[in-house]
Amino acid sequence: MATSETHLLKDELDIVIPTIRNLDFLEMWRPFFEPYHLIIVQDGDPSKTIKVPDGFDYELYNRNDINKILGPKASCISFKDSACRCFGYMVSKKKYIFTIDDDCFVAKDPSGKEINALAQHIKNLLCPSTPNFFNTLYDPFREGADFVRGYPFSLREGVPTAVSHGLWMNIPDYDAPTQLVKPCERNTRYVDAVLTIPKGTLFPMCGMNLAFDRDLIGAAMYFGLMGDGQPIGRYDDMWAGWCIKIICDHLGLGVKTGLPYIWHSKASNPFVNLKKEYHGIFWQEEIIPFFQAATLSKDCTTVQKCYVELSKQVREKLGKIDPYFVKLADAMVTWIEAWDELNPKK
Amino acid sequence: MATSETHLLKDELDIVIPTIRNLDFLEMWRPFFEPYHLIIVQDGDPSKTIKVPDGFDYELYNRNDINKILGPKASCISFKDSACRCFGYMVSKKKYIFTIDDDCFVAKDPSGKEINALAQHIKNLLCPSTPNFFNTLYDPFREGADFVRGYPFSLREGVPTAVSHGLWMNIPDYDAPTQLVKPCERNTRYVDAVLTIPKGTLFPMCGMNLAFDRDLIGAAMYFGLMGDGQPIGRYDDMWAGWCIKIICDHLGLGVKTGLPYIWHSKASNPFVNLKKEYHGIFWQEEIIPFFQAATLSKDCTTVQKCYVELSKQVREKLGKIDPYFVKLADAMVTWIEAWDELNPKK
Repeated sequence: MATSETHLLKDELDIVIPTIRNLDFLEMWRPFFEPYHLIIVQDGDPSKTIKVPDGFDYELYNRNDINKILGPKASCISFKDSACRCFGYMVSKKKYIFTIDDDCFVAKDPSGKEINALAQHIKNLLCPSTPNFFNTLYDPFREGADFVRGYPFSLREGVPTAVSHGLWMNIPDYDAPTQLVKPCERNTRYVDAVLTIPKGTLFPMCGMNLAFDRDLIGAAMYFGLMGDGQPIGRYDDMWAGWCIKIICDHLGLGVKTGLPYIWHSKASNPFVNLKKEYHGIFWQEEIIPFFQAATLSKDCTTVQKCYVELSKQVREKLGKIDPYFVKLADAMVTWIEAWDELNPKK
Repeated sequence: MATSETHLLKDELDIVIPTIRNLDFLEMWRPFFEPYHLIIVQDGDPSKTIKVPDGFDYELYNRNDINKILGPKASCISFKDSACRCFGYMVSKKKYIFTIDDDCFVAKDPSGKEINALAQHIKNLLCPSTPNFFNTLYDPFREGADFVRGYPFSLREGVPTAVSHGLWMNIPDYDAPTQLVKPCERNTRYVDAVLTIPKGTLFPMCGMNLAFDRDLIGAAMYFGLMGDGQPIGRYDDMWAGWCIKIICDHLGLGVKTGLPYIWHSKASNPFVNLKKEYHGIFWQEEIIPFFQAATLSKDCTTVQKCYVELSKQVREKLGKIDPYFVKLADAMVTWIEAWDELNPKK
């Protein structure tokens, strides 16, 4: 099952997994993940032992480790929420990150073949994106496809791809209200496409099956303040997605979505989710127009500068909605400080 | 093979076919097209007789008819180019148009079932579009799909769909340079998706397999001046696509692309195509930035007003590239005058 493809970028990619339980799910991924280094971010009770199947190369951080490494700056890393995963992005020293939830298994394509999600993410990240004009045959860099008639030649070089957003078979990533209304809906449609999210368009980025280029966008992949002590949950990846899209658009980087699929095994409890999402459902009605209107100045030439500039706008404009956003804006700055401390310029 | 689906909107939709030859290709479409009225726009020599298979309900217009009906305004309708098809949009009295090339046949889906392209277009047109935010599971109104977590609830109603852009199996819609470089490339990938082209994003609209709501956008579906006596060809549908996208974005209408597929049987001659496209390849490098920057004033509350406003901008800004664009701008105004004459306000 393991092919040479599996080993692509072996020394340049870390797999980040947030978890509160034993990582039995890795057994199914063994042929694909074993060659890679894992960064496990243990959420919840740090005294609990997380079992990792034999043979995997990993480092594991629990809350005590995070506090020790970041000191007071650990306040920017969420607790009791999978948002804690972004600590793994920060301590990695690799160029690429793939992050996956521990309830996600290997999906099959329509021919019944197991999908090497990681290999597809790597393909997505290694070929350019085309955010400035839509290609109706989807990813023009894919085998058997190209740019169609009428696609300007000057735009065919594309831009570097910063983010690869994968999808989910079986349990779709629905919000609590939709889960409540459609408890039995399953995603059975395999859409054989990868496409670039156009410049100027926001999208709901899910952290369940996500890869990115740490060098290009890592410093903006902050999953916010969620869970313990916070008025909100389940908006961690969304928040990161809105921020990175604004910054990718500003810096001329691409975001792809579509393949690869993973098999999402279990729907989370919609009642618990509603509680977590409750404020977000209202707030996002103001957050989206805020991001849709957000622009960054020409001085913002690095991801860090963009992110700090964005944090100021969050404080100023979203701070009016709720004091939470002032705290979040502060945490965004702390995140950048911690990132720069752990990732000094070479 | 014909299902009740086939008869959807029977009295509200015309099929427009531009042609220079006998319409034998209709035999394959019989189960799907026979219930509908056809508008055949005969290009080239008007003395030639076009045979239409028995049983189809049609009206046919040749160049003499066009000249008789439009008088001097016939100058806005291209000759010796499939751009002439837009005359059919103008004389139709129906709410919906489906237009298809006469070298396009019924495609099969991956299960081997023949695809009723028209039924899929109707589905696309009858359910809303979502241009203001990207949904990662594609068309949220499709069976088995929905809006994903993080999609703002206020945007879930969507907007009316004005255009449904279908795709092509077998011969992809490539430009002459790509045809020359990849003469053997065939499209074999069936992507089971329909998606909304986001607001603010331009796309290359192909006229081969296209449907639209005439009431919502018909007056802007002008295929420009191409072919006989013009310095350019094969940009007719592209031109229309750029114009309609700007206007749909301005008026809050949606444009969908993806399903349905047709089977495109024959690649046109790449050398002939290069001759037609030659100027367009250069010009589009300036046309695209022009459209990307184009905005319409608040007074532009109807398609006609939008289109006339756009024609002014074309004259002013693209007229500098080549006198052709001044002529085109004039033709855009003539088109609207002719449209209004044939389609008086009720």
